Order: sequence, then structure tokens, then C-alpha cells
Amino acid sequence: MSIQALLDTIAQHVDPLLDQGRVASYIPALARVEPRQFGMAFAPIDGPIEGTGAWRTPFSIQSISKVFALALVVAGDGERLWSRVGREPSGSPFNSLVQLEHERGIPRNPFINAGALVVMDRLLSLAGDAAGAVLELLRAESGNPAVDMDPEVAASEAAHGSRNAALAHFMASFGNLENPVETVLDAYFRTCALRMTCEDLARAGLFLARHGLRADGSPLLTRSEAKRIHAVMLTCGTYDAAGDFAYRVGLPVKSGVGGGLLAVLPGRGVLATWAPALDPRGNSLAGLEALDVFTTRTGWSIF
Amino acid sequence: MSIQALLDTIAQHVDPLLDQGRVASYIPALARVEPRQFGMAFAPIDGPIEGTGAWRTPFSIQSISKVFALALVVAGDGERLWSRVGREPSGSPFNSLVQLEHERGIPRNPFINAGALVVMDRLLSLAGDAAGAVLELLRAESGNPAVDMDPEVAASEAAHGSRNAALAHFMASFGNLENPVETVLDAYFRTCALRMTCEDLARAGLFLARHGLRADGSPLLTRSEAKRIHAVMLTCGTYDAAGDFAYRVGLPVKSGVGGGLLAVLPGRGVLATWAPALDPRGNSLAGLEALDVFTTRTGWSIF
Amino acid sequence: MSIQALLDTIAQHVDPLLDQGRVASYIPALARVEPRQFGMAFAPIDGPIEGTGAWRTPFSIQSISKVFALALVVAGDGERLWSRVGREPSGSPFNSLVQLEHERGIPRNPFINAGALVVMDRLLSLAGDAAGAVLELLRAESGNPAVDMDPEVAASEAAHGSRNAALAHFMASFGNLENPVETVLDAYFRTCALRMTCEDLARAGLFLARHGLRADGSPLLTRSEAKRIHAVMLTCGTYDAAGDFAYRVGLPVKSGVGGGLLAVLPGRGVLATWAPALDPRGNSLAGLEALDVFTTRTGWSIF
Amino acid sequence: MSIQALLDTIAQHVDPLLDQGRVASYIPALARVEPRQFGMAFAPIDGPIEGTGAWRTPFSIQSISKVFALALVVAGDGERLWSRVGREPSGSPFNSLVQLEHERGIPRNPFINAGALVVMDRLLSLAGDAAGAVLELLRAESGNPAVDMDPEVAASEAAHGSRNAALAHFMASFGNLENPVETVLDAYFRTCALRMTCEDLARAGLFLARHGLRADGSPLLTRSEAKRIHAVMLTCGTYDAAGDFAYRVGLPVKSGVGGGLLAVLPGRGVLATWAPALDPRGNSLAGLEALDVFTTRTGWSIF
Repeated sequence: MSIQALLDTIAQHVDPLLDQGRVASYIPALARVEPRQFGMAFAPIDGPIEGTGAWRTPFSIQSISKVFALALVVAGDGERLWSRVGREPSGSPFNSLVQLEHERGIPRNPFINAGALVVMDRLLSLAGDAAGAVLELLRAESGNPAVDMDPEVAASEAAHGSRNAALAHFMASFGNLENPVETVLDAYFRTCALRMTCEDLARAGLFLARHGLRADGSPLLTRSEAKRIHAVMLTCGTYDAAGDFAYRVGLPVKSGVGGGLLAVLPGRGVLATWAPALDPRGNSLAGLEALDVFTTRTGWSIF
Repeated sequence: MSIQALLDTIAQHVDPLLDQGRVASYIPALARVEPRQFGMAFAPIDGPIEGTGAWRTPFSIQSISKVFALALVVAGDGERLWSRVGREPSGSPFNSLVQLEHERGIPRNPFINAGALVVMDRLLSLAGDAAGAVLELLRAESGNPAVDMDPEVAASEAAHGSRNAALAHFMASFGNLENPVETVLDAYFRTCALRMTCEDLARAGLFLARHGLRADGSPLLTRSEAKRIHAVMLTCGTYDAAGDFAYRVGLPVKSGVGGGLLAVLPGRGVLATWAPALDPRGNSLAGLEALDVFTTRTGWSIF
Repeated sequence: MSIQALLDTIAQHVDPLLDQGRVASYIPALARVEPRQFGMAFAPIDGPIEGTGAWRTPFSIQSISKVFALALVVAGDGERLWSRVGREPSGSPFNSLVQLEHERGIPRNPFINAGALVVMDRLLSLAGDAAGAVLELLRAESGNPAVDMDPEVAASEAAHGSRNAALAHFMASFGNLENPVETVLDAYFRTCALRMTCEDLARAGLFLARHGLRADGSPLLTRSEAKRIHAVMLTCGTYDAAGDFAYRVGLPVKSGVGGGLLAVLPGRGVLATWAPALDPRGNSLAGLEALDVFTTRTGWSIF
Repeated sequence: MSIQALLDTIAQHVDPLLDQGRVASYIPALARVEPRQFGMAFAPIDGPIEGTGAWRTPFSIQSISKVFALALVVAGDGERLWSRVGREPSGSPFNSLVQLEHERGIPRNPFINAGALVVMDRLLSLAGDAAGAVLELLRAESGNPAVDMDPEVAASEAAHGSRNAALAHFMASFGNLENPVETVLDAYFRTCALRMTCEDLARAGLFLARHGLRADGSPLLTRSEAKRIHAVMLTCGTYDAAGDFAYRVGLPVKSGVGGGLLAVLPGRGVLATWAPALDPRGNSLAGLEALDVFTTRTGWSIF
């Protein structure tokens, strides 16, 4: 079966799932997204991108942006980040604040909110305009200069950002922020508000599948750095479901509460899916099933 | 033995303890306090106040102010406060944030920082100038109009207040604050910076020993309300050492990180002690011993 | 109003509550108890006992026995127990195992199950037959030689005792048991199965109200030891509702999952209530209300 | 560089590390192992095994046996196990009991002790003699009939097994054991006491690298089942260091407190290392470094 046929088969297969799960509801801009939507794209490292369903409809990538911010900090700082943030799975959501307290303000990994705030803080020091640096990377790698932030989402995030503010102040109390809390939060909220399609996202992630090489052939990361980001995605990329994703999908994946998933097949390509209805752990319900079927049918997995 | 003789005996007895423990060090104004100081006063409900040692030296009462803020809110609101804050002991310091998360933003009791922020928030709604209302109560009950805030301490508290800011933003994320986070924090920090002597403090607390009656004979609290504040002091007034204080002292006590202790003997009087060096749980080391000896010698205890 | 009239009024007052709450259901012998029952007795230190309702119906006192076991160990060992068990409130049920792990096998207080197992372990070393020693004390103080264990309840406790077995093995792993795990568990289960009436229980507790003096005038505890047991009851005697009991009742209380409550009025007498339906925290729903009304009407409280 | 040369280079490279870390000390048989030992073997799926250092010295494989027990249960039961045990990383050691309580007796994953007890319980139901079934598998796959249990270690484990007894009783209290607690513990302790060399271990693990095919060509697991065991090893195989192993090594690994490590290179072969001194998280210090160097030099990793 061709990849295009497989993608279309998957779109049919997950259709009944689109009525299950719930779209994120903590901000109005996400709450009003129509749940019956599904898009999926596969970008191979050496051929044309293919897609199915709503793969050209833009959506809010939310936490998927954390992979790109992390890549920029690793590119600029190498191993230094790991004295300020760990790389172990967080265990369970209920622990996030406990662990931050227990481990003296050092977040468990760069993909939980606290860890992403530290990454953003460091990117501010490295790049000045942190949110702008992430946006620039996404535009360049996707080849789509129209990729942009959704100002309504950024404003909503800020208006509902008390919990992230609590995390940031708490880390500041342990001396784990270099920039003012408000500056870090602003960059964080704007980065979460990035908006793009499965097509854009799959292309933008190709530097990870190419072991660190950007679209123009220049290195963003060393081979070893790319491999290590894959490892962090696999163990920490999908909230408290990392074990379940590893078990069912067997690929490095990063998810976002907007319903997007970015999966890397090292040396082979990138998968991006979007289906806004989430399972109880905050991952796209139809997206997880789609990745499961794709890897089962192709036999492509890292294991 | 007369009360005066007993107080003097206690001062001698605790003298060797003044070299133990450590003064609070999180802000410079507290860190530089000379540790070898001890004062103690006993104000009976129906006789002259007596004291020993540094009982007329002003010190930062810190969290002892939380009793007075609570009394004002109970006076204004009755039982309503308890839908927003619990009255159970907090178990252990490490739990404070866990419990706040676990219990959806409802602090365990009004004396842990999170709970005191809710009390302050409510007092802002009731009185406008919350810190001013507490100051006014202390001046009126102590009979000393010179009682005041220490602006250096208030500024220091604010400058080192990231953790309290984290708690406030976290409760705001659960909708448990009525006023803006910054306003609540400002009132909180100023109230913690109140400064007075053991003499002032013992007199100021007499309305509790008189079952709610103020110095001028007017009721601040009903008898039942006063009794209930005693209960909260006994079970929650000394951080994680409430059980130990109940066991050794057997009186409702509120402690402050400046080294002060306020103990109520219902129907009889008020004890105030000050010794700045703290034990590992944040309570005055010599102060606890002083209260232990006083209650053992007099046989005065609620049990 | 006479005490008898007050007791009868309270029985009427709590009658509607008997349809609320739920009887304990973890063992059949407790699950089949008829919920619409209420008994209450008041034993003054210097007069005849009075009672109302089902005050002469025997019930399973369960954890109330822990006070008597503690008294025997304190009588035999003085302060030594406190190196093996703390006396701080436990915060919340969910913490029990965490805290045991966090605090290296030292239970928070002698009234949570883990702590009561340590007390029982020590009583085995002191008295040989620990359960027998508690039974003997209860018979002597109540003046009723018919007080006994319910063998069906003891067997049921053992059959459903996996969780207590887990606690005991866990403490053994930290070296905090002197006797074999099975011996400790057996004594514990038999002690929980003691069965008596409100009348028996109120009389049996009078040594606490008499500051340690037994019915025959001999001292079981020193005045200071009795006071300290009151303190532990007040801060730890009612599971996670100690703050609420202190606030509403203002007396040292110990509760049992069989629906009994034992409240001490130091220097005055003892109250015992029984109503099998429990609130969500495991305390007798009508019993708590009855104590609240009794202390409010009489003004008798330690605060 | 040939594999043999690389293995020898690694042995030299890690030599200075053999003076660091500490051997496990909770039982005498492990505590007296000489720490300055290192062995490493690489078994390719299609060529002769090679090794260096003490690769033919037997050691206690301890928790590495958990992979083989899991494989047998998956082979017998398919997906059914996952209703009784999760497959998410455990977060931190301190959480193990909390999570068990919080998640109603369902262990986080099959490699923490609680989860391995459930696996052993199920293997007892499937195979009768669970420890014997694991031993038989190891003998057959390693081709070495002399592989055996160390009776002294098994007895020591049982004698120091209070904590595992606590876990087992706790799960029994939630109804998550099919067999008597004592039977499960006995099988568990005997399986932990298996003893073999790096050479044996690398050969024994080849069925995992061959996607489920045993040495005799018969299938133990389907390809999909083998892949899924790799995923669980990667996310949960090295206690609280799974993220660190994924980051530095990038292979599915299982560790044992005896100092052994088993790493699978799917489709390529198996690495086994042994160095008894452990890092603070309980993994072999020199073994982790050896795997890190091996994967870095060869570029062999799943990412």
C-alpha cells in the first residue's frame, strides 16, 4: 500500500473516534474548535510530502513549540541547560509542583510547563526575542513565511495564566530564572500561540529526522544532540502517557493541547497529525490511534 | 512562687538555650538580630502585667499577626470564611503546595501562608486597608499608639516574596482570591512587618483570653468565636509542631519567625515570649521551653 | 436544664441525622449494624452516670481502644515511646504511607493505624498479652466484667487485614517493631474487636478525666501524663477531622469506625456517644453533632 | 575498530570508575562482592559473541530477571497483564508507595518491585513454578545448563524482604494478587537470586534482539510483543534514571542491583555489562559509562 493510501485508510479508520474525547476548554479560542476534524501528513527526508484530511488547516500547536525552543537552546548552549532542568519523566501530573518543591526548583524535564519556562528563560538570554526566534525557525524550516502567532490565543493564555505564573514565581524563589518573571511568561504565552498546519509542522520537524540538518543543509544540531532530543521526546513528550506512546507507537513524539502530534522517524521522516479532541491525559485521541496504525502497518518504529 | 519570681526563674533557666538554634535568615533585617535575647510577659485578665528580660524590646511579630487578621475577618464575616480555607493541621511543610493542588486551591488552615493570604484577601474586601485594620487593632488593644510597621522589613519581605507570589497566583488560578494578586501580597507583606514588644503583644491578645471582649469592654468576637480561634491556634498555630506544643505546653499558641510566641490561657490571661533563635521547625527554641516550664510550674493548661 | 434533660434533648435533635452517613462496610460484622441507633452517656467524676437512647447497647469500640493501649504503654514506659512514634497530626489519609516512607518508618502519631501497631508492639513487650491487658483495664475501670472481645469481629479484621499487614511489614523493614509481625497484628486485631456500651466506655475513660487516677484511687498515669494524652487526643484523635472537632467540640476526643466517640472533660467527666453511621472522614455523624450541642449548651470546653 | 578492540578500549576507559560508587549492601552476599570488577559482552544476532574483562564471571542478575519473567507472561497472556499493571515511568522512588495507594493497588510498571510482584503472581498462575520457568528460559537461551539460583542470596532476600512483603500485602488489600502473598514473595526472591555471566546474559537476551525468536528458531513473542517489551525497558528499565539512560545510551536497558546491565540493539544484538559498584540511583556506574561509549563510538542507537 502506498503511503498516500495508508494515510487515507487511517483517516477513515479514526473517523468514529472524532466523536470521542473533548477539546481543550481552558481558553475560549481552543474551546470553540470544531472537534470533528482530522489531518495527517508524512514528510519523508527525501521525497515529496503527502497528507490526508485537514492536513492544510492551521491549528494552535501549543506545547509542540517546546521541541523547537529546546532545539534552539541546545544549539546555543550544548549540555549546559541540564544543570537547570532534568530529563526524567515526571511520573504524574499531580506531582509537578511537589517535585518542583522536592527538587529545589529544578523541573523534571523541559517539556512540562515548569521546564519549558526555564527553556524559554534561557532562550531569552541567548536570543533576546525568544518567541521570535522560535517563529523564525518554524518559518524557515516549513518554508512557509505565513506561519504566525495567534494574538487572541496569546492574550487568552496570559489571561488564564495564573498557574504558569505560580510556577515561574516558585522557580524564581529558588533562583532558577535569569530574566524577570513577567518577561518569561510573556515569551512563553506567545510561543504557545503559534499556529500552523500539519504540512508546515511535518516539514518544520524534518531537521530532527535529518539528525540535526536544517532545510538549507546547515547544521542546527550535532547528530548526537538530535539523538538526545529524540530521547527526551520519547520519555517526556506526551505528558503522563510517555510509556503508553512508546508502547503503542514506538517513536519520539511531542503533543500539544490543541490536538497536534509531531512524531519523528529518525533517518526517515516526520509525521504530523491533528485532531482536536483529547483523551483524559491531554493527548489527541484520534492522533494517537493514527500513529499506532501507521507504525503497525509500516513496521517503522525505533524498537 | 509569685508570677514575677517565676518569670525571672524561667529567664535564668532558658539562658543556656540562647546559644542554640538559629535566627531566621531569609531577609537581612531578621538575619542581623542578636540571638542572645529573651523576653517574657504575662498579662492577666484582671491585674497588672508582669515581665522579665527584654520584654520591652520591640521585635518583628511576623506570623503572629495572622491571629489578629483572622479575628477581624471572623468578627466581620462569621462562619463564611471556612468555605475558602480549611481548619485542619497541614501535616508537614512539604505538603503545603501538594495539598493546595490536591484540594483545589483551598488552603488547609488560616495560619499557613496560603491560608493567611486568603484571610488577608477577605480583610481587604471587608476593611479596604487590611494592613491598616490590623495595625489599628493592635494599637487599640495594646494601648500603645507607637506600635507600627517596619518599612525595611516590609520591603524585604516583598523583595524575597517569590514563594508567596507563587502561592497567591496558584490560588488565583483556582478562583480563590477576590482582589488582585499584587494587592493581596502587598497587604500581606506589610502585616508581617508589624513590630512590637512582649508587653504590647500580651496586652493586645487579651481580648482572646476575655472570650472576645476588647480592652474597652466592647465585643470583638462572640464567646463561641473566641473559643473557635483558640481551637485553630492549638491545632494549627505553630507550623508542623502543633502536636508537640499541645503535648508540652497545652495552650493555644501562635508563633512567628521573628522568634515571638503568643499563648492564650482562656479566662486567665496571655503569655508573650520573644527569643529570636529558632528550632528546625521555625519556632522559638527558648520560647517553647519557657512556655513549657511556665505551664508545668503553674499547672495552668487547658487539658 | 438538667444533664438528663439535655441528653434527651440531644437524642431528639440528632434523630434526623441517623438517616444520613454510612455504617462502616469493610467487614460484614460492622456492615450489618442497623444505622438508626443513638446512645449517649455522661459520667461525671463525682456523681452518678446518666444516659439516653441506646446507651446500654454494646457496640464495637474499634479504634477507641487505642487510647487505652496508649495509656498502658505511657504508664509503663513514660516518655520512651516517643522515639518510635511521633505526636503530630497526620494531615491527610492519603499521606499515611508517604509519611511513613518519608519519615523512615516512624508513624506520625499513636492513633493512626501504623502508630497503634507500634503501641501494640511495645505493649506486647511490656505486658506479654497486650490485648488481654487492654481488656483487663476496660473491665476494671468500667466495673463490668462482662466487657469482652467479639471473636467474629477479630476474625473478620484479620481476614481483611492486608493493609495493616502492609503497614506492619513496612515498619519492620525500618526496624521499628520489636515483636514478630504476625504477633503484633494478632494483638492489634483482637484489641480492635472489643465490645462495650456507652455506659461502660464513659466509666472506663474516667481515669483520664481524673488526671490519671483509676476507679480504685490508684494512679495509672501522673497528672502530666494524663494531660499529655489529652493533648494527643485533641490533635490526633479523630483521623483527619481533628481541627474540625477542636473547632466545633473543643474537647479531647477519640473516635472509632464502629460509630463510637469518647470525649474527655478534664476534671469534670467523660462523654461517650454511639451512632454507627459515619461521615466521609470516618467519624460518627450524629455523635459529632451530639458533642457539639452538648458543649455549646453547657459551655464546657477546654478553650 | 573491531568490536573486540572497542570492548577492550572500553574496559580500560572505565577502569578509573571502578573505585567510585558503592556495591549494594542490603544483603551480605551482595555487600561482600569485590567492587573492582568489570565485564562486558556483545552478542550479535548473526555472529560469535565477544567479551572483555570479567565477562565469564557469574554475578547475581537480580532485577534483570524481571525482563525474562515479563516476556513469559506476555507470551502466555498477551495484552491481559496491562489491566493489573501500568507501563508508565514511576517518576521517583519516593513515590512508589504513594502511587500504589493513589492508583488503587495498580503498580506503575512491571519493573518496579510492586509491578514485578504482579508479574510473578501471574506467572505462578500460568506456569506453576514461576521461578523455575524463568530459570528454564535462561538456561535454554544462554545454552548453559549450569545457570542456577544462588540459595544464599534467595535466603538473604527473604530475610530482608519486609519491604517487598509490605508491597505484596498492600496490593492484596486491593485485590491485585491471585496467589497467596507468601507464595508470590517466595517466587520473587528466588528469581532475584539467579546467577550468571555477561556471556550467558547476552546470549539469553538475544530473543529480544531477534524480535521474539528463541535460539531454536521458535517464536516466544510476536514481533509486536518484542517491540513493546523494548519500549517498556526504555521507559522503565533503569529505576529513576530511564530518561538519563535514553539520553546517554539510547537503547532499551534493564539494570540489576548486582551491577548488571542488559541492553538490546533491536535487529542487531545484545550487550551485557557487569560492574558491581552502583551510582546513587542504583545503576552500575561503570556499566552506564560503558554503554554510553559503545553507542557513541558505533553510532548504534534506536534514535
